[in-house]
Amino acid sequence: MNSLKLGGLLNLVLASSGRYYLVLGIILIFNTIAIAQGNNSKKEKPNVIIIFADDLGYGDLSSYGHPTIRTTNLDQMAYEGQKWTNFYVGASVCTPSRAALLTGRLPVRSGMASSVNRVLFPDSHNGLPQSEVTLAAQMKKGGYATAAIGKWHLGHKEEYLPTNHGFDSYYGIPYSNDMDNIVPFRSAGGYFEFWKSEKRKDINTFNVPLMRDTEIIERPADQHTITKRYTEEAIKFINDKKDEPFFLYLAHNLPHVPLFASKDFQGTSPRGIYGDVVEEIDHSVGQILDELKKTGLDKNTIVVFTSDNGPWLIMNEEGGSAGLLRNGKGSTWEGGMREPCIFWAPGRIAPGIVTDLGSTMDLFTTFSKIAGVDIPRDRIVDGVDLAPVLFNKESSARKDMFYYRGDKLYAVRVGDFKAHFITQDAYGTEITEHDPPLLYNLSIDPSEKYDISKENPDVIANINRVVKDHNDKMVKGKDQLAERGD
Amino acid sequence: MNSLKLGGLLNLVLASSGRYYLVLGIILIFNTIAIAQGNNSKKEKPNVIIIFADDLGYGDLSSYGHPTIRTTNLDQMAYEGQKWTNFYVGASVCTPSRAALLTGRLPVRSGMASSVNRVLFPDSHNGLPQSEVTLAAQMKKGGYATAAIGKWHLGHKEEYLPTNHGFDSYYGIPYSNDMDNIVPFRSAGGYFEFWKSEKRKDINTFNVPLMRDTEIIERPADQHTITKRYTEEAIKFINDKKDEPFFLYLAHNLPHVPLFASKDFQGTSPRGIYGDVVEEIDHSVGQILDELKKTGLDKNTIVVFTSDNGPWLIMNEEGGSAGLLRNGKGSTWEGGMREPCIFWAPGRIAPGIVTDLGSTMDLFTTFSKIAGVDIPRDRIVDGVDLAPVLFNKESSARKDMFYYRGDKLYAVRVGDFKAHFITQDAYGTEITEHDPPLLYNLSIDPSEKYDISKENPDVIANINRVVKDHNDKMVKGKDQLAERGD
Repeated sequence: MNSLKLGGLLNLVLASSGRYYLVLGIILIFNTIAIAQGNNSKKEKPNVIIIFADDLGYGDLSSYGHPTIRTTNLDQMAYEGQKWTNFYVGASVCTPSRAALLTGRLPVRSGMASSVNRVLFPDSHNGLPQSEVTLAAQMKKGGYATAAIGKWHLGHKEEYLPTNHGFDSYYGIPYSNDMDNIVPFRSAGGYFEFWKSEKRKDINTFNVPLMRDTEIIERPADQHTITKRYTEEAIKFINDKKDEPFFLYLAHNLPHVPLFASKDFQGTSPRGIYGDVVEEIDHSVGQILDELKKTGLDKNTIVVFTSDNGPWLIMNEEGGSAGLLRNGKGSTWEGGMREPCIFWAPGRIAPGIVTDLGSTMDLFTTFSKIAGVDIPRDRIVDGVDLAPVLFNKESSARKDMFYYRGDKLYAVRVGDFKAHFITQDAYGTEITEHDPPLLYNLSIDPSEKYDISKENPDVIANINRVVKDHNDKMVKGKDQLAERGD
Repeated sequence: MNSLKLGGLLNLVLASSGRYYLVLGIILIFNTIAIAQGNNSKKEKPNVIIIFADDLGYGDLSSYGHPTIRTTNLDQMAYEGQKWTNFYVGASVCTPSRAALLTGRLPVRSGMASSVNRVLFPDSHNGLPQSEVTLAAQMKKGGYATAAIGKWHLGHKEEYLPTNHGFDSYYGIPYSNDMDNIVPFRSAGGYFEFWKSEKRKDINTFNVPLMRDTEIIERPADQHTITKRYTEEAIKFINDKKDEPFFLYLAHNLPHVPLFASKDFQGTSPRGIYGDVVEEIDHSVGQILDELKKTGLDKNTIVVFTSDNGPWLIMNEEGGSAGLLRNGKGSTWEGGMREPCIFWAPGRIAPGIVTDLGSTMDLFTTFSKIAGVDIPRDRIVDGVDLAPVLFNKESSARKDMFYYRGDKLYAVRVGDFKAHFITQDAYGTEITEHDPPLLYNLSIDPSEKYDISKENPDVIANINRVVKDHNDKMVKGKDQLAERGD
């Protein structure tokens, strides 16, 4: 692994170039024992909390370079934990990205990526198939109490809801916070005109339901207080389940537009309403970490913070920033699919900056193993186990990333190199095929500015082999996003 | 001030909305006493170290968002100190930027900004006039030992060198590390062709002299070991002067191209040679802070790290990154003139992220006052005293920034708003005048993407008043950069 903060014996040993395999072996044995012990004793299994933001860009936290968004709690979390700088989501839009995280599989395998619709809509017929195994189902199998709080977006019909996908309970909105709007875009003079109108600031414009388990309890959901209420639910769950291992999936539906903050945060950020919203989520993270510390659960809880896809750039000032990365949500450029990611578990996770590759799909594999549950063997699971990086500062087992747009493979990263076979603007209709592919060295050129395909035919040949192997084994799931309408 | 890390009584008091003036007053009195005491006793005056990088961009440190450049020491310095996110240099190229830092004045006042040449060259006739008062002269007046180490670029003739501008000693190169090249660009087939040729990797291509005081001691300077040697000189100076107050100006000539790293760093960074070079400078910072800690001087030394201008984007992979800021070196867009800036003085400077405005010109005023030396009254000094922000977490007295290109005012920032009256590409010849000016809210839109001039005539009217007042008082110095040739 490439770690930016090395210190202590373990790091010294690992920073050396392979001369201390014996010592390393002993350390690994100790860790294996520790994990095995955890699996034998129910109480010893670490709790897992995944905090998932919506449309937050790579550049939207202070610790990832934003000059005016003040994310004090996330910065502190990054300082105490591992800040990953090459961490990917499984797709550049909501529905498939969430499917990837919860199944550990590229969404094209589960049918949650489509050639027709990019996400599920309130009139969609389907959702995440029952044949898929979710991380929640895995954790439950491992003896964990499980809860989903926040945005779901994997099917709003009862059979697709969280409580039918491994979660003991659910509290949140079933799809995006801009959906089910009773004032159609049409009446505002079009989609973009609508987002400039004052109507976007009224929660009643959006007829989004708030649900508990399978029941609608509020409609429209009061989005002003929604981050606050998710946080209260999360803290209640943590306290209710503190004597058993628990898995919490807290998927904020913000800073996806429309942007709403509670009174305490409205008009407080120099970054405007987008900053208000992100700073309220940051505050929520702080409250959760504080609660863990207060209850002593910090010693036995792993917290991950990341986001579902890049910033929604077409929303202008109300969209986020991908920092130095190119493009944003909806595209297969880095800005669309690389996200801030922080792992935190004081005393367990060695602090530092990790430049190795990771993905939300890896959370499935990593946490399943921590829960002592086998990875399904009857299907391809794309996630790798990140435990060696998290706990032992070893190299990441992830060496590649596949960038799909819908059900089509657009780009592939192998090591430092990314090849774009197809490019298309985030919301553009013009599709450009590249042969040879555009090639970028992402370690040297993270902004994807300098095409080096001509100088590197060998690199392209190697990527082509990886792609062929990938395609040969690909079995696409039945498209679950295509069917819509009453 | 806007601080991202608030904690403790003082912060609570200051974060409150003006209800605790009495407590605040008492705190201020304590601080004033502390500073006054410092001025009365020579030993009590804090040492000052300015570390100045060359062409390092806003996005080139991990703590400012770079994914693969590993700046462990600077990140730790930022965590222990203040990380400023709206800190400016006085010009977007070397010579005028350095004049601004050392005189506390916009370079157009000293004649160090020209309509003919952007910087000084090896065949330039002039340099920083003797009539200018440098920060070094001020510190010397305050009883400080003073040293300049590194790149000067304010005149290479004897009368303009550091030892004739307030520094007791000098060790470094008198202008940029790409100058005085014996293989003219012409022979490589042009300027850009040269920077693609292997010749750029040979130190003998550049006939840059290394000087001690006013003597050339090595030519060409061995640039592979230059960062290392600057660091050794700095540590020697710190130890030699540890019983008296000292001022060290350590101006690295890297990561300006050509890029050279020592053997320990060559080929070690995932970011390539640019990363090797920045990581070696980061290592140097670590060595200096370690030395301060080892000698106990950390308790009485203020260290500042910043850079002279934005990244040299036309150098492609060998130039840096401005992160989410627009454009780079040579331009009056934010990427050209906003820089990473870290203030560090454990126990003195309250840790946090500062989003208020600051400038290298303010270092002149701030440190002059700390040295107990009056600001010259016979001229306009643009610097403001940042001590209230550094030591008391108050608001910055700086509310505006003037963006000159050469001797011409291109843009002005007042509070959150920046108006571009003229725009021009970093190295372009096409000049575009804007009436009304382009207007950006930099707190909401740091990437200068969304012109809001039409909606904000009042903001523009206010900026126009500031500009008129500025222009009315402007007395331009005689152009020192114009005369060249044998």
